Amino acid sequence: MRVMGVDPGLTRTGFGVVEQRGGSLRALAVGTIRADKAQPAPVQLLNLCLALERVMEEHTPDAVAVERLFFNRNVQTALRVGQASGVALLAAAESGLPVFEYTPTAVKQAVTGVGNATKEQVQFMVRRLVKLDADPDSPDAADALALAICHAHVGRSLARMEAAT
Amino acid sequence: MRVMGVDPGLTRTGFGVVEQRGGSLRALAVGTIRADKAQPAPVQLLNLCLALERVMEEHTPDAVAVERLFFNRNVQTALRVGQASGVALLAAAESGLPVFEYTPTAVKQAVTGVGNATKEQVQFMVRRLVKLDADPDSPDAADALALAICHAHVGRSLARMEAAT
Repeated sequence: MRVMGVDPGLTRTGFGVVEQRGGSLRALAVGTIRADKAQPAPVQLLNLCLALERVMEEHTPDAVAVERLFFNRNVQTALRVGQASGVALLAAAESGLPVFEYTPTAVKQAVTGVGNATKEQVQFMVRRLVKLDADPDSPDAADALALAICHAHVGRSLARMEAAT
Repeated sequence: MRVMGVDPGLTRTGFGVVEQRGGSLRALAVGTIRADKAQPAPVQLLNLCLALERVMEEHTPDAVAVERLFFNRNVQTALRVGQASGVALLAAAESGLPVFEYTPTAVKQAVTGVGNATKEQVQFMVRRLVKLDADPDSPDAADALALAICHAHVGRSLARMEAAT
């Protein structure tokens, strides 16, 4: 199973693709799509959509995992992050991929075993779990990998439960 | 000049296309795209994108006018409205159309002559200006027409200024 994680943001959107074979995970891709602030918002969103679809085409994930949107920053930020998030969901739907949403707590739990892990603990475990030699190029890219790992774990548990019945 | 107005929302997105010839305006299309709440969000957003692109293809506007996002409702609502708004901006960019943003005050000013007009005054003037026999099928559709009218007025003033120089 291949899972793509996406962490959409105002100026940076992280992505990561992991492959699960047997009990082992490995990162196929990880990176950051940066918005060109000199461009008008519609062009930034179109570029984001095209970049995400390019990753989906190249790495053919079976599913996309995104963070369940929830935060208490200001409303203007929420609107702009919502725009990026909407485009990420649209890119998945256009590519015919199912989308799964996870809360930050669920992601931390899946990656480190504890729901209130620090950002550093998450990054450390992400690197170990998918055998990365270096840190991803942004915190958003690391979060995207964590989302993908989270969904891969959940999918594996579901398959195990189905096999047991 | 043809202008498409779009008023993106959580469950309903209004659209309206107006044509300006000489000093006169007329509505070519007006309607509401309703989200199917039984569908997951990515599918709702994809349907919205496809529906907007269909209107753009059929009525070939020269520009798209949207409301400048700003409101002080809760952050969750802002995130979801942002998702619809992001998809509307993307649809315009995919169709190669320039997007213009207007504040609600600018729209009211353009349509009624006063920036603090009531919703009823706006609707009344929209119907008169674009010669509609009946009210649009939702307040969002009426707002979308008002946005299109606003941009048509601004475009006409700009053209007049350019002609005068």
